[in-house]
Amino acid sequence: MLEQLKQQVFEANLDLPRYGLVTFTWGNVSGIDRASGLVVIKPSGVDYDIMTVDDMVVVDLTTGKVVEGNKKPSSDTPTHLELYRQFPTIGGIVHTHSRHATAWAQAGLDLTALGTTHADYFYGAIPCTRKMTEQEIQGEYELETGKVIVETFHKRGIEAKDIPAVLVNSHGPFAWGTDPHNAVHNAVVLEEIACMNFMSYQLNPQVHSMQQVLLDKHYLRKHGKNAYYGQ
Amino acid sequence: MLEQLKQQVFEANLDLPRYGLVTFTWGNVSGIDRASGLVVIKPSGVDYDIMTVDDMVVVDLTTGKVVEGNKKPSSDTPTHLELYRQFPTIGGIVHTHSRHATAWAQAGLDLTALGTTHADYFYGAIPCTRKMTEQEIQGEYELETGKVIVETFHKRGIEAKDIPAVLVNSHGPFAWGTDPHNAVHNAVVLEEIACMNFMSYQLNPQVHSMQQVLLDKHYLRKHGKNAYYGQ
Amino acid sequence: MLEQLKQQVFEANLDLPRYGLVTFTWGNVSGIDRASGLVVIKPSGVDYDIMTVDDMVVVDLTTGKVVEGNKKPSSDTPTHLELYRQFPTIGGIVHTHSRHATAWAQAGLDLTALGTTHADYFYGAIPCTRKMTEQEIQGEYELETGKVIVETFHKRGIEAKDIPAVLVNSHGPFAWGTDPHNAVHNAVVLEEIACMNFMSYQLNPQVHSMQQVLLDKHYLRKHGKNAYYGQ
Amino acid sequence: MLEQLKQQVFEANLDLPRYGLVTFTWGNVSGIDRASGLVVIKPSGVDYDIMTVDDMVVVDLTTGKVVEGNKKPSSDTPTHLELYRQFPTIGGIVHTHSRHATAWAQAGLDLTALGTTHADYFYGAIPCTRKMTEQEIQGEYELETGKVIVETFHKRGIEAKDIPAVLVNSHGPFAWGTDPHNAVHNAVVLEEIACMNFMSYQLNPQVHSMQQVLLDKHYLRKHGKNAYYGQ
Repeated sequence: MLEQLKQQVFEANLDLPRYGLVTFTWGNVSGIDRASGLVVIKPSGVDYDIMTVDDMVVVDLTTGKVVEGNKKPSSDTPTHLELYRQFPTIGGIVHTHSRHATAWAQAGLDLTALGTTHADYFYGAIPCTRKMTEQEIQGEYELETGKVIVETFHKRGIEAKDIPAVLVNSHGPFAWGTDPHNAVHNAVVLEEIACMNFMSYQLNPQVHSMQQVLLDKHYLRKHGKNAYYGQ
Repeated sequence: MLEQLKQQVFEANLDLPRYGLVTFTWGNVSGIDRASGLVVIKPSGVDYDIMTVDDMVVVDLTTGKVVEGNKKPSSDTPTHLELYRQFPTIGGIVHTHSRHATAWAQAGLDLTALGTTHADYFYGAIPCTRKMTEQEIQGEYELETGKVIVETFHKRGIEAKDIPAVLVNSHGPFAWGTDPHNAVHNAVVLEEIACMNFMSYQLNPQVHSMQQVLLDKHYLRKHGKNAYYGQ
Repeated sequence: MLEQLKQQVFEANLDLPRYGLVTFTWGNVSGIDRASGLVVIKPSGVDYDIMTVDDMVVVDLTTGKVVEGNKKPSSDTPTHLELYRQFPTIGGIVHTHSRHATAWAQAGLDLTALGTTHADYFYGAIPCTRKMTEQEIQGEYELETGKVIVETFHKRGIEAKDIPAVLVNSHGPFAWGTDPHNAVHNAVVLEEIACMNFMSYQLNPQVHSMQQVLLDKHYLRKHGKNAYYGQ
Repeated sequence: MLEQLKQQVFEANLDLPRYGLVTFTWGNVSGIDRASGLVVIKPSGVDYDIMTVDDMVVVDLTTGKVVEGNKKPSSDTPTHLELYRQFPTIGGIVHTHSRHATAWAQAGLDLTALGTTHADYFYGAIPCTRKMTEQEIQGEYELETGKVIVETFHKRGIEAKDIPAVLVNSHGPFAWGTDPHNAVHNAVVLEEIACMNFMSYQLNPQVHSMQQVLLDKHYLRKHGKNAYYGQ
């Protein structure tokens, strides 16, 4: 079942240690098959060294029930499912505790767009969510995490496809994309930006968002119908 | 004697350079066999490159005397022994001068819990000890180092198993765990947190401890009878 | 056509990931054959892993038209061409989003000469350009980027060969040299200096430019007719 | 001639890139044979990749003349010779532009002893020299660099063997030791301390030198007649 997607999700998970985004098992990637409403995700707490493609778990988008696989899915599965349900344009999701992005999440601050590296991938500031309430944390915590992310995008009027990442306050980053591979790509970019912006703000605390016209130029030369970057 | 524990301690010591926690010989791992009251520890000042399992030294928990081995044990052995005597739940100890954790120890500051990475492993702030007195330093220094660590935990009412690490003021970190491997795991996490928190405080000097309810949630989903993380 | 230059440009491009200057495809190197007025440059958005020497694109210095090659040239080609036209002494150009140099570009700050590492390669501060105007960004953006760089050097009275790098405001660094290999060499030095200076300013916000006499000494012991460094 | 010392100096030079202390050719190691008054040093500007033991240059301690070797010695040779002449206890010297130590040198600040990592190797603050005068820079610059280092140690009453490193203002670090290998060892430690202290000062700008009694304890447990660290 979904052999190709399982292979993609498996490889995308292995990319996390390759790009230095995870320590131990602190990350997970999933992918969705929109036609069948099935999501493939990493098993919970399994070492990347010993993980195989057959360890991938298939869960139902609506119910969250395991449809195939003999391991428990990632404990963050309900967060992934909520994002897939509310962001219909996305095909892959990645969660990590990568160092620089997590530092910003812990600081509770948005990642403002300071330069063209950011603008090439994210069409505006990458938002940091509000802190979760006691009720949300003590309730269905992982599901509520997804709901707070969605709320953040709705309240700010952001489309998930335009800014494919978020910082969960006091926690860490989630990124997404058109497929699992693209989601990891965006997570790598996010980490680079988080590192650069950390230094830019230390050097110049008065620095503020780049010009809107430059943000437009760079984002739109890589995205949309007038894109002209690449082959 | 204790062949399995010696192998574990040996491998855990080799993990220190593998995880980038030590330069030269600046670290040591030990493990204890509670049944016999014997502790296995790295020899003093031996290079990781040439160290073999037979170099591991067996010492007596109570007297500190070498029971087996033809090398001198780590000069930090009395610190390890004091921790094993006073923290009966721990099975392995690691000491390093890892960069970020040592920077915090030199700054004389606790590592406050700022995010879920911390909460997944440490149930509250990782304490930094008080500075040692002239008498302690000039007396049985390594033993007194252990006593100051224990005093810190007792005075603050912390259980060693709940917060398996400490920063020794003007010195560096000690971490521990259920066995030598787990102790090294905690030392790696400590270094990650120390790095992230360094950046979070630079970005937002007003940042303070995460919500208690979120700390509870993350710590308890991985520890205790209601844990649900992993397989 | 230009087989030797194509090989040089190809190898110089591969040096970018080798020296840790690029993530994904975020960089490009070009080289010029002054005799024929032809420029060889990396194709746009092609992965370093799969790129071959035959992917290099040959463009005309004056018209920017592709003369040879079956791929589109880097989207930054018009910037490279403008620099080659206005800086007749240079033979190779490199553009990256390397972390530390980009952080300074995002902060909108010059890289002041603080020490001999800088003085060995750059005869004074590495300038950061002004922000580009709306008209420039919405017009022939990549060409205008080159023009703003040239304007910066002309207004400050800097010779391109004396300070072979620039920070483009809100964007990132360009570096150049006598040939593609030398341009990459300068880009590596730039990144080192950007890292060191970041820390120097954090340690001592009052730090200012090194003595002119020391700058002279170090630059001139490696450059010009009285140079005595090397074999 | 001096085959063993040449091999030692060659290997110690190769250790510089291995420990991440140099970029390109920005470093050099030398060793001295006190009996013959001859110094072996790296050739100037030769890549580490292609350097062989036969490239090592033998120079006379007193005259600085090349006694053996078909390459020019490092341009920093007069600095090394002055240190060997004035510090009769040292057997090897290393100069690098390692990132963190150079950042402190550019900031013009001493490396205060903040913790036991420092105290295990350096018996007090690692001094930063005064800026050199115009006359010194325009005169026999490399020789004068050595003289300023020696002046710094004499004025502060420091023995070279007790604090085997210095930061040359606006330039970078020199370290030394009992032989070339030990000098590189100290250069690695210096870089570690420079990194840790950078972070400690950012975290706590009020941090000051560690207690003298703790400095004594750690330095003397590894050095002198009562040392008890190692085998």
